[in-house]
Amino acid sequence: MKRLKTVAIVGVGLIGGSIGLALRERKLAERVIGIGRRQGSLRIARRVGAVTNTTIDLAGGVAEADLVVVCSPVALIVEHVRTAAQAMPEGALITDAGSTKQQIVAELEGALPPGRHFIGSHPLAGSEKTGASNAQADLFQGRIAIVTPSAANSAQEYDAISEFWQGLGSVVVKMPPEEHDRAMGMISHLPHLAASVLSATVPEQYFRLAGTGLRDTTRLAAGDPELWRQIVSTNRKNILTAIEQYGNKLAGLHSAIRDGDMDAVKEILTRGKNNRDALGS
Amino acid sequence: MKRLKTVAIVGVGLIGGSIGLALRERKLAERVIGIGRRQGSLRIARRVGAVTNTTIDLAGGVAEADLVVVCSPVALIVEHVRTAAQAMPEGALITDAGSTKQQIVAELEGALPPGRHFIGSHPLAGSEKTGASNAQADLFQGRIAIVTPSAANSAQEYDAISEFWQGLGSVVVKMPPEEHDRAMGMISHLPHLAASVLSATVPEQYFRLAGTGLRDTTRLAAGDPELWRQIVSTNRKNILTAIEQYGNKLAGLHSAIRDGDMDAVKEILTRGKNNRDALGS
Repeated sequence: MKRLKTVAIVGVGLIGGSIGLALRERKLAERVIGIGRRQGSLRIARRVGAVTNTTIDLAGGVAEADLVVVCSPVALIVEHVRTAAQAMPEGALITDAGSTKQQIVAELEGALPPGRHFIGSHPLAGSEKTGASNAQADLFQGRIAIVTPSAANSAQEYDAISEFWQGLGSVVVKMPPEEHDRAMGMISHLPHLAASVLSATVPEQYFRLAGTGLRDTTRLAAGDPELWRQIVSTNRKNILTAIEQYGNKLAGLHSAIRDGDMDAVKEILTRGKNNRDALGS
Repeated sequence: MKRLKTVAIVGVGLIGGSIGLALRERKLAERVIGIGRRQGSLRIARRVGAVTNTTIDLAGGVAEADLVVVCSPVALIVEHVRTAAQAMPEGALITDAGSTKQQIVAELEGALPPGRHFIGSHPLAGSEKTGASNAQADLFQGRIAIVTPSAANSAQEYDAISEFWQGLGSVVVKMPPEEHDRAMGMISHLPHLAASVLSATVPEQYFRLAGTGLRDTTRLAAGDPELWRQIVSTNRKNILTAIEQYGNKLAGLHSAIRDGDMDAVKEILTRGKNNRDALGS
């Protein structure tokens, strides 16, 4: 990736802060402008060295940017992209880091001023931790970043955004927005919801008996409920399908146990083990 | 715990091997006899220093034991306890490390020769790893060991087994066998099965997109299907109840998403987060 003059990051939490840290540590941008709504988070972003400048003024912050990365919560991305696109220089690119893509890409298609181009991204590098205080320069190293160009995007735009994520150490995967959302419904949103529901099911009186198994299996449930409400809300159809497939398999296991069909039980456990072994540690 | 002369461990895998290592490192036993069916595992147990002697002869191995700890797979525990009890000295105690207790305790109650006493245990310190090669002397340090005395056990027997687990660093919790199995159904067996089914649900084509979230949530699915078939088989009623409670909450989440009731979705996510935060890291 060629060195950029000014990158503006809208939302300097874990993801935005880590992008800033990586850009600065790898000397990929001269200036990294952190844009946020609260002075408190901006102060943390400055303190950890994720940004060189900060502002609460979105329009002012993007005015000289070559690249704008919107790391806001999913429900705010479209609004922040629109506002940024009005104020950023002609020819500047804008991307995001949202966990869902289809709705965002569809709402932004053809909705920006001429010469301002949005192309969707999703770095697969979250954590149940939040905030710039947990930012890491190597958060994207070796991790997948999905880029979801639409028909409105040129090959040059795709290449530029790919280079950006590769510059941060990511492995870029290209996917249509709808395929991204279908895959994430299964591989990211379903595990989160399964963990949340499991955590919500275990009675408090048993907490003292919890071991590492329950802790691992429910770790995702610690994520921010409001952020996840937004993700669920923007990927409803795919999430419903994923829950149905999971629920059906769970009901199948229940029947097998109830009927004493221990061969069928072992078959489900074996399928689970084979898949898990294939995932790696 | 007062120093024992001879402890016999039947089954020197992860748990049996770790008990041996802990006994030897803490100098709690003069001799630790590892008993197994395969010379290969016995060799590993000797090599990692988990045992001082080994044998494939159960009766011979327990003949001089003050304490016998049966760490066999759940389905073999009753048989191994019976065989050991025939051969061990009068006054010797025998316990186990099985993940279910009610059936084992019930089958052994009143079934041993006079002067040989079984009292059930379950150290909550497993892992998806297996074998003495993964044994750790501190596996039980700070972890809970549940002891499940029955009406047939004296206070002295309970105290002796409690001291044994405390000697390995465990925090001992006393529970009736049926309460143990109810609690484990919810806090250990349900998470395992939820992880297995989740792992079995995710289509292979998406594996390359898997992040740490899916890996954490499905980690338990890597456990041995045969061992877990046995656990399911010996705790059917409680596991069915736990799956039903989980399945009902999952169905509730599905309805809320389908109906667009995002307040209800957030409520479930918030309950999950609060529980998870209470569990600690």
